[in-house]
Amino acid sequence: MIKTLEWTEEGVMMIDQRLLPTEEVYPVFKNYLEVAFAIKEMVVRGAPAIGVAAAMGVALGVRDAAADTPEKLDGIFDHICEVLAATRPTAVNLFWGIERMRGLYQKLRSENKSLNEIRAALIDEAKLVHKEDIEANRSMGRFGADLIPDGATVLTHCNAGALATAGYGTALGVIRAAVEAGKKVAVYADETRPFLQGARLTAWELHKDQIPVTLITDNMAGHFMKLGKIDCVVVGADRIASNGDAANKIGTYSVAVLAKENNLPFYVAAPISTLDLNIETGEQIPIEERSELEVSHIKGIQLSPDGISIANPAFDVTPNRYISAIITEKGIARPPFKESLKKLAEG
Amino acid sequence: MIKTLEWTEEGVMMIDQRLLPTEEVYPVFKNYLEVAFAIKEMVVRGAPAIGVAAAMGVALGVRDAAADTPEKLDGIFDHICEVLAATRPTAVNLFWGIERMRGLYQKLRSENKSLNEIRAALIDEAKLVHKEDIEANRSMGRFGADLIPDGATVLTHCNAGALATAGYGTALGVIRAAVEAGKKVAVYADETRPFLQGARLTAWELHKDQIPVTLITDNMAGHFMKLGKIDCVVVGADRIASNGDAANKIGTYSVAVLAKENNLPFYVAAPISTLDLNIETGEQIPIEERSELEVSHIKGIQLSPDGISIANPAFDVTPNRYISAIITEKGIARPPFKESLKKLAEG
Repeated sequence: MIKTLEWTEEGVMMIDQRLLPTEEVYPVFKNYLEVAFAIKEMVVRGAPAIGVAAAMGVALGVRDAAADTPEKLDGIFDHICEVLAATRPTAVNLFWGIERMRGLYQKLRSENKSLNEIRAALIDEAKLVHKEDIEANRSMGRFGADLIPDGATVLTHCNAGALATAGYGTALGVIRAAVEAGKKVAVYADETRPFLQGARLTAWELHKDQIPVTLITDNMAGHFMKLGKIDCVVVGADRIASNGDAANKIGTYSVAVLAKENNLPFYVAAPISTLDLNIETGEQIPIEERSELEVSHIKGIQLSPDGISIANPAFDVTPNRYISAIITEKGIARPPFKESLKKLAEG
Repeated sequence: MIKTLEWTEEGVMMIDQRLLPTEEVYPVFKNYLEVAFAIKEMVVRGAPAIGVAAAMGVALGVRDAAADTPEKLDGIFDHICEVLAATRPTAVNLFWGIERMRGLYQKLRSENKSLNEIRAALIDEAKLVHKEDIEANRSMGRFGADLIPDGATVLTHCNAGALATAGYGTALGVIRAAVEAGKKVAVYADETRPFLQGARLTAWELHKDQIPVTLITDNMAGHFMKLGKIDCVVVGADRIASNGDAANKIGTYSVAVLAKENNLPFYVAAPISTLDLNIETGEQIPIEERSELEVSHIKGIQLSPDGISIANPAFDVTPNRYISAIITEKGIARPPFKESLKKLAEG
């Protein structure tokens, strides 16, 4: 079992995903600022994992806060939440994790709980967020496994695996569940430039689990679809609008268009916490622009000439018309998503 | 003016494209075996440039052949051609270059020319192939420039520039000609994994020519099309079947599908020597599979875990239905290509 992140007495222990697959290192992030750094710098990444990390960051911040009364904690609490919320803009799970902690905090404050009670309860809540995420993944996997035919070859993009969650995975959770149900499943993994989550993380995870994986560069996916080598696509999501438009790692939109052109089902697997029912369409999702250095260099090696422009949007939005189904822990949503997602979220 | 390759008294001087953009080095390949190595290892790449290099390789081989009569040269000539033909399978220009030299060789032999006359004539022919390629690029550019609107942003994939030809370029030749005609043109360049011809070569060429270029990873192209940032696509080709199906660098098919989905014109620029009228459709084009190391490593840095499968097809085939026009040095072919290409080739 891959341990993406874990609460410890010293802080949040996380596998440093920047160093995989060649080094497996588990540093501990000892306070909420270090956790914010870990999220921003992608020590931990993947929408659900970021949500769990943020919840743990809040719990750490409250644990360490220099307040001697609950009243004095209020301002510090808001500050901790602001710092964590400012790390990455696209994945809604980050804000969901923070808001869940805020909801509990406000409840505890309204119940006049003591400082120690608040501290203990927030730590328990962060651990519960972690536990529930794995349970949600497992449930998502059971629902999604039915969509994967025996003998299928599944294409996935980026890493929506154990490493993107508290464990097990969303898209890779669906694949794992299909394998656990006795199906023969093989995977094509897009390497996913620029950060190479597919090459570094998805290939590593699947190989560890002995699920056959073939690594390809992103621009090969269409070629293999056209050759009939791929039966369906399963990806994760960072934010899903009310209408089903889904933000996910840059390149997902292209994969979705290619799947449609080749008549292949395109599935999105994500927990309910990835739904953002406050927004109507994907056009309202903020897209993070990351450093040019992620494109121009790999581990210090310069790939492109100096002096040119470089774009590095970390996500794109796949319009709902390309999505065959959205797999959640509460069941599978089919188009029209506006109705089906609302029903699942409320159910 | 970029000097991709050049005949010298010592052999064929080529810019080592494996070292760009950080090092600009011009080694000389002194015999036909060294030229074969340069083609295979991608010191020189790009279908038209490979055709020129092969012609020069044949001339070098004949120059150095240990034969004291024209009769003794015949077997050696065939061997030289075989070695050069075995370097790379997809670009038809390689075989075109060799066959052009063979045609002349056979003519000279039937005319009972002397050894020295044959040697001199083949060197002159190789130089002529080089000169004609640049002229073809210029002509292609003039025809193609009309298709590029003033103020356009053009997406290109891989490198179909001066570095892929004797000079000037096919796809980039069209862009250069549009700029020379006074149009304002900006370029989005796909980095083109795994060999990064876009990041290393296209960005370098265009920046040298002060044509504004924005480097993106391959999986960003669809995103920017959807955002309306791109007006048309121009790419090169490695082999075009009678029906217009075009083999080009892996990823081209995906770009073509995305262009169609976003209602953008998709143009292929290639000399007549890239046409293979011996084959009906693109399904008959052999696709080169290259080393897994090109995907798993960059300059010795390991990107993916050991023990997994890796695919590395170097080309894909774009079916003719995705192609708006094929730009050649003899004019522009429009669908249906079976008729229009035949007419241009015969004209």
